[in-house]
Amino acid sequence: MSSKYVQIAADLRSKISEGTYRDTMRLPTEMELAGVYSVNRQTIRRALSVLEKENLIEKHQGSGSYVKDVAHADSSNSIAIVATYINDYIFPAILQDAESVFTHNGYSTMVFCTHNQVNVEREVLKNVLASNVCGLLIEGTKTALPNPNLDLYREFENRNIPVIFLHGTYPSIKNAVCISDNNFNGGYQLTKYLLKKGHTKIAGIFKSDDIQGHDRYFGFLSAFRDADLPLPDSKVLWYATEDKKQILENKYQPLLEIFIKRMIDQKITAVVCYNDEIAFIVVNLLLSLGVRVPDDMAVVSFDNSSYSDFCRVKITSLAHNSEHIGRVAAERLIDMLHGKPVHSETVPWTLVEKQSS
Amino acid sequence: MSSKYVQIAADLRSKISEGTYRDTMRLPTEMELAGVYSVNRQTIRRALSVLEKENLIEKHQGSGSYVKDVAHADSSNSIAIVATYINDYIFPAILQDAESVFTHNGYSTMVFCTHNQVNVEREVLKNVLASNVCGLLIEGTKTALPNPNLDLYREFENRNIPVIFLHGTYPSIKNAVCISDNNFNGGYQLTKYLLKKGHTKIAGIFKSDDIQGHDRYFGFLSAFRDADLPLPDSKVLWYATEDKKQILENKYQPLLEIFIKRMIDQKITAVVCYNDEIAFIVVNLLLSLGVRVPDDMAVVSFDNSSYSDFCRVKITSLAHNSEHIGRVAAERLIDMLHGKPVHSETVPWTLVEKQSS
Repeated sequence: MSSKYVQIAADLRSKISEGTYRDTMRLPTEMELAGVYSVNRQTIRRALSVLEKENLIEKHQGSGSYVKDVAHADSSNSIAIVATYINDYIFPAILQDAESVFTHNGYSTMVFCTHNQVNVEREVLKNVLASNVCGLLIEGTKTALPNPNLDLYREFENRNIPVIFLHGTYPSIKNAVCISDNNFNGGYQLTKYLLKKGHTKIAGIFKSDDIQGHDRYFGFLSAFRDADLPLPDSKVLWYATEDKKQILENKYQPLLEIFIKRMIDQKITAVVCYNDEIAFIVVNLLLSLGVRVPDDMAVVSFDNSSYSDFCRVKITSLAHNSEHIGRVAAERLIDMLHGKPVHSETVPWTLVEKQSS
Repeated sequence: MSSKYVQIAADLRSKISEGTYRDTMRLPTEMELAGVYSVNRQTIRRALSVLEKENLIEKHQGSGSYVKDVAHADSSNSIAIVATYINDYIFPAILQDAESVFTHNGYSTMVFCTHNQVNVEREVLKNVLASNVCGLLIEGTKTALPNPNLDLYREFENRNIPVIFLHGTYPSIKNAVCISDNNFNGGYQLTKYLLKKGHTKIAGIFKSDDIQGHDRYFGFLSAFRDADLPLPDSKVLWYATEDKKQILENKYQPLLEIFIKRMIDQKITAVVCYNDEIAFIVVNLLLSLGVRVPDDMAVVSFDNSSYSDFCRVKITSLAHNSEHIGRVAAERLIDMLHGKPVHSETVPWTLVEKQSS
């Protein structure tokens, strides 16, 4: 996890870029911010001084902190990191890896968060363009869908600002350099593992609006095809970013429950989950329905995150290689800045077997 | 609607290609089939004689109808039509249009149905390849997802069998010729129409696994972007083919209801629906929740089908141009068979305003 003040700085940075303080250009007081984030004023001061160093805000003696016009920021050595999420799940570690590479190489960083919303991405990209950064490390938003912000992405190309995509890119951006996990292989590997264990009726739960979801699904299907088994169309459940919010707020359960009951009716004995976040919820739902894991239903997943360990039944999951993807992506962006040729890369997975399979 | 016997022939053809009668190669008796389809024996006889003419079955005096080895069928002048659906919604009219063009030009046709399942598509494509057709008119399955059957599509290319895609194709098939509605423009047009009427908070419901859904969504988003309005990420609901089945069986309502309640909370005043099938259900749900259409919520849609007229509040919907897409697709396939150069085409929509907006 990033330090608390780093997270608060990132959140304020996103709010600034989204125009939250547009009207008065004045940030809430340190006291107010301490209340909002439930931290002491010292932590808020550290967060604000990060933003001050980045030239995003300035302190006016006696009257508080004000947003500066980003177009005037001194950013010749500054790199923008745009992530879908900052504080959740596997994202803090990835960002920390990337940031430490940039810092170690003498670059300053500005971190923005899109919440995987094209609406926020649009505002963030406009702000990054206005701040004249020297490079952009970005996790694309909803990469499996057509993107309405390609005009802004093209502007980076026009200005010769190097861009590295993390986790996924858009097919219509030609020559995009993307550092991602090998998601096709991951889906294939997990499914083959289950087939080898004797499972034949295997369900899949995938994310529909990120290209990672499509690639994992494709690996899943291809393992069936290559084993000459029927393709499991009716055994797949898709969920989108907005559904994910509902899932985490416990509102999506009716549909998940219907799906899981259908799985039981279809005598399915294993399920491949898009990631540990969803696998965690699936295991708990199964247990609450009286389905034993793994005896009645095996569950496997991606990311080998803390979710897979905190679960009542520890979840078999694909681990990210020691070659941390955040570090690799940052190094490639620095290579680009130094004029070195750079290509897309995929990082392999390692299966970590636990209790759920 | 196709005649009943044509529909029954199509259904039996699909069953034959799926291997339903693989064990004995014997079809149920005419009497049994009449019971299954709730028609008289005369209709069954007409359906069977269609299949007999296509060399798919043969009648053995006294013992019934048997499936012939399709590889031996005489098919030099035969065209395979593969559709996602045959008997539902807008599909009978499209198929009838295509069939009549082929028949008029001296071709015989075999119609198959995939139910938008890659599993069925795989079996159908294998059977079509085994039957040596001279051309293929196909509606791709789940065109917004990676497809595990591209190996079979490539086999058509290897054998120089002309293929026309209807409604959507796969990006990885280079030079594919596709005849489709102008879905991007349709989404754009409907959204602009609502914006002009003064709506600004507009939701969208789209299909996630067909490229038509992505294109309509992209038009929807682009209308907001071009009007310099915030992109409506959180106002979009996605559903997949399997969800559609649940919707039609009334099992998906919990999620639809949650979404519609969220729409009401967000003070949304209009919704763009993927097609009339879903719009029909949405209007009924809205009315049952006490939401007046169009006073509290406008609903607009695609296809201008009978659903939009049968609804309690007739639905404003985009109509397919008089240039019927099934006819255009069939004509282009015949052009290809005659060695003429053929390109992808999109067919425009016409807005038909009714009561729901």
